[in-house]
Amino acid sequence: MTTVILTKRFHFSAAHRLHAEQLSDAENAEIFGKCNGVNGHGHNYMLEVSVAGDVDPVTGMVMNGSALRTMVGENLLIHVDHKNLNLDVERLAGVNPTVENLALHFWQWLRASLPPHMRLIVTLSETDSINATYDGG
Amino acid sequence: MTTVILTKRFHFSAAHRLHAEQLSDAENAEIFGKCNGVNGHGHNYMLEVSVAGDVDPVTGMVMNGSALRTMVGENLLIHVDHKNLNLDVERLAGVNPTVENLALHFWQWLRASLPPHMRLIVTLSETDSINATYDGG
Amino acid sequence: MTTVILTKRFHFSAAHRLHAEQLSDAENAEIFGKCNGVNGHGHNYMLEVSVAGDVDPVTGMVMNGSALRTMVGENLLIHVDHKNLNLDVERLAGVNPTVENLALHFWQWLRASLPPHMRLIVTLSETDSINATYDGG
Amino acid sequence: MTTVILTKRFHFSAAHRLHAEQLSDAENAEIFGKCNGVNGHGHNYMLEVSVAGDVDPVTGMVMNGSALRTMVGENLLIHVDHKNLNLDVERLAGVNPTVENLALHFWQWLRASLPPHMRLIVTLSETDSINATYDGG
Amino acid sequence: MTTVILTKRFHFSAAHRLHAEQLSDAENAEIFGKCNGVNGHGHNYMLEVSVAGDVDPVTGMVMNGSALRTMVGENLLIHVDHKNLNLDVERLAGVNPTVENLALHFWQWLRASLPPHMRLIVTLSETDSINATYDGG
Amino acid sequence: MTTVILTKRFHFSAAHRLHAEQLSDAENAEIFGKCNGVNGHGHNYMLEVSVAGDVDPVTGMVMNGSALRTMVGENLLIHVDHKNLNLDVERLAGVNPTVENLALHFWQWLRASLPPHMRLIVTLSETDSINATYDGG
Repeated sequence: MTTVILTKRFHFSAAHRLHAEQLSDAENAEIFGKCNGVNGHGHNYMLEVSVAGDVDPVTGMVMNGSALRTMVGENLLIHVDHKNLNLDVERLAGVNPTVENLALHFWQWLRASLPPHMRLIVTLSETDSINATYDGG
Repeated sequence: MTTVILTKRFHFSAAHRLHAEQLSDAENAEIFGKCNGVNGHGHNYMLEVSVAGDVDPVTGMVMNGSALRTMVGENLLIHVDHKNLNLDVERLAGVNPTVENLALHFWQWLRASLPPHMRLIVTLSETDSINATYDGG
Repeated sequence: MTTVILTKRFHFSAAHRLHAEQLSDAENAEIFGKCNGVNGHGHNYMLEVSVAGDVDPVTGMVMNGSALRTMVGENLLIHVDHKNLNLDVERLAGVNPTVENLALHFWQWLRASLPPHMRLIVTLSETDSINATYDGG
Repeated sequence: MTTVILTKRFHFSAAHRLHAEQLSDAENAEIFGKCNGVNGHGHNYMLEVSVAGDVDPVTGMVMNGSALRTMVGENLLIHVDHKNLNLDVERLAGVNPTVENLALHFWQWLRASLPPHMRLIVTLSETDSINATYDGG
Repeated sequence: MTTVILTKRFHFSAAHRLHAEQLSDAENAEIFGKCNGVNGHGHNYMLEVSVAGDVDPVTGMVMNGSALRTMVGENLLIHVDHKNLNLDVERLAGVNPTVENLALHFWQWLRASLPPHMRLIVTLSETDSINATYDGG
Repeated sequence: MTTVILTKRFHFSAAHRLHAEQLSDAENAEIFGKCNGVNGHGHNYMLEVSVAGDVDPVTGMVMNGSALRTMVGENLLIHVDHKNLNLDVERLAGVNPTVENLALHFWQWLRASLPPHMRLIVTLSETDSINATYDGG
């Protein structure tokens, strides 16, 4: 009834290459264009993590911002910041790192660490001009 | 179930004048104030186009970003960028170009070009301080 | 059916200190960390006020932007801009000014001045990295 | 020796059309492209006014920010905000309103109102991607 | 000859009150207006620290970015972040914390820790609309 | 005397790895930290190109913005956008792609294409928090 959504923003920088294993090289080149370059390129990603829940009547918080920061740092940022998303991240093995796929996977990484009654929404921006939102509940 | 919202941002610059044909000059001046100036003024508009759909398991995309850019360019930007919205745009004839009306019309222009199973949401910003969102499904 | 959401952004600067009256000094220090400093700190707050309603067929507006600005100015900004939120604002007496609590209270202050058929959503940003949204209907 | 530069930012929205009177229509079209459209387009301009001077030992200010705001409002913003720069502004009559020309003219408008010992620099942004700076001393 | 300017941006949040000890209460109220409120207000300050020097032919750096961050953290941010600039900061005792005065003092704090052959420029923004630059060499 | 500085902003995304060939692996790891990761990371770079010159009395321009865009596109962006700066760019072979080195090299690439009487300044931002400026005349 008095559910408030608390959102924190995080930044990380990473390299990636868009390439789908199920497709031929020619198909990859056609679909992903310059994002398919063999040696990769990279982005300053912005991650917005929103948790929705009741405001604690004592602290006035949905969740302690500092606890949220630690949780996102340990479960997500440490694995991707200053990494190559195709080569360095075990739990993304075989995943084509589109902004949509990354948003989905990041949501799953964080979901496991949040109290079940809190709704979680993740928005990931690859540049100022493109982002993806996953609201998995 | 795994619906992801993909959002792309576009920019265009246009002139407009707020003026409702059904109202007198005095009423227009009172309601629209300095936005009613006879020779118009203008803005750098920011358009956010969000499409919601399933992530393709092969490409990892809701929709190809480059196809989305082409679609918005051909169906929308070419008609309004560096134009006078009151005088140059046939399909806005008789429309008072408030940010709300523009968001509604732009949504309709884009809706026709999208696969029906994809939800479309349009947000149009006139300045950093005012925007309108239409989520017509 | 043709509900459009109109959003306007406002800015104000204020001091605050996070401190819960029901907790001991040690608990406050642990929970709120550097935000619990005795003499307070401060922020440039950004307030986004969204009103959702039908677009008036004559004016092309959900609500007159200038009326909305006046309403937010008189009912909200004048009470908090360049103030100390813990010491200067009567209607926040006893409230721990977390971003969540402020979003909730600001929503209530504005709700009373809006036509009942318009939905109201408030998002308050304390910094670029943290914000809270209350969508109370 | 302890000269500090104080900068304030202002915003205004205006329509304009790039068109040089000394050139033929064909030359104008070639040089200015879509910026030469007959009915004009427009921008949200951002104006940065920098004044350089000694810090007053009593007030701690180079210039009172509120006085600066009034000066820019009365000598500049009132003439251009929500105007058509080609048609509505007497003191720009015959001037092709490129961002360079506007920066030069705005500098002159403000120079006359500032104490002579204060250096004045004006930067005008037409969009996030283009701006002009005039540092006339 | 190949001097490059390296700039890093930092953020901190603080409370302050503009008040000049040499002036009467009435004068303070007239000069500083709402910034003179007894209980203070606050800002999210942005600090830009620019160091100019030769690019090291081995590392390709003017100065190690991580060393610069540590230097600014230990000599500046720790003293002002989440503090009340009038009450909590010994080395600002008696200083009216205008954006000009703060830029001057912060430059002096940092100057002492930098190699003498590197030029230092400090820009401090109080809000998006006002900043001060001190280029003391 | 009436020199105006015209600045245009460009964006590109690239991968890079900081690594100095003259140093040992241990030294590289110590100096460049997480920026030295073997598989690289990446950024959304923002490039600001400033040209200073007289305003043409006929066109009102220092330089045609569209010509400047073409020049930067053909001489710079095409070589680095969506590339790996260590592996894909011949003219950066052997260069450690720090933000300082990139600013210096980009300035040289552009200098050759500009009329000699126009001064050129290049600022390159790696993230919102770090940039380098080279003003080589």
